[in-house]
Amino acid sequence: MENEKVLKVIEERRSIRAYKPDKVPADIIDKIVEAGLYAPSGMGRQSVIIIAITDKDTRDRLSSLNASIMGSDGDPFYGAPAVLVVLADKTRPTYIYDGSLAMGNMMLAAKALGLGSCWIHRAKEEFESEEGKELLESLGIVGQYEGIGNCIIGYAAEEPKAAERKPGRVYKIE
Amino acid sequence: MENEKVLKVIEERRSIRAYKPDKVPADIIDKIVEAGLYAPSGMGRQSVIIIAITDKDTRDRLSSLNASIMGSDGDPFYGAPAVLVVLADKTRPTYIYDGSLAMGNMMLAAKALGLGSCWIHRAKEEFESEEGKELLESLGIVGQYEGIGNCIIGYAAEEPKAAERKPGRVYKIE
Repeated sequence: MENEKVLKVIEERRSIRAYKPDKVPADIIDKIVEAGLYAPSGMGRQSVIIIAITDKDTRDRLSSLNASIMGSDGDPFYGAPAVLVVLADKTRPTYIYDGSLAMGNMMLAAKALGLGSCWIHRAKEEFESEEGKELLESLGIVGQYEGIGNCIIGYAAEEPKAAERKPGRVYKIE
Repeated sequence: MENEKVLKVIEERRSIRAYKPDKVPADIIDKIVEAGLYAPSGMGRQSVIIIAITDKDTRDRLSSLNASIMGSDGDPFYGAPAVLVVLADKTRPTYIYDGSLAMGNMMLAAKALGLGSCWIHRAKEEFESEEGKELLESLGIVGQYEGIGNCIIGYAAEEPKAAERKPGRVYKIE
């Protein structure tokens, strides 16, 4: 069945923590973002927004901001050239769930298109900082948006092994 | 490219709110649950658990509990014969994000396998109730688990139209 491909992509996706410097073509970024927009949302309200960053300077500044939040000076984006930031309107009761689903769709779409990805946390803290707020303002984003996740995207420079699934996580009542 | 199938499934998945009574074969349920287990999780900790309910009595009792939380006496599971409940260990800082990703994978896997699904909320309240706690206890589940979502699964009895995506949700810095 052709759609078994979907299950394969789900099982073979890995969090990638090493990237080649090669840029990701804009049309590929667009497809990944589109997948994020198609995630379901509470009451179908679609309150999630996505900032697609491929500009190197902005990407580097966001990386530094993210690093500073955890008191580091490394690159928490692992050299990935693109960062798709998901934010959600926190006045919606389901906003964290909704934003997470957009992140999940984008990670799967990236895998399907031959790219690596990883969810990098601390997006919440990024956009609670002055620098993060200024970034939103510069884009004309107004409203009660909370950072949900940074989806880093690029060509993988590693091939992580399949992570073993922990046993004992499924309970059946049949 | 064969993996474009994945993008198609992502874009064509809809929240299904009417189901045929037909049971879902156990091997299909297993595949969907497996997809949930393969979702990424913070630090790879895999703290998400899934309760797969296909027993009619238990499914009906959970539906009544869910309905009572919102002060209704309908069937919030829309007649779906199976409910896959995701819970996550709330001592993990990323537990809501992690649980949501498991929900997302299962909804996509269901679509890929020809089934309908929908995220039904109020799982948190379900398992904060005495009845919910007793259910967890009867399964030998101990720990600080919070309900993340009810993923209802079944054969769709409707074909919802493509929901238009709201415009203005993407910002590019390139």
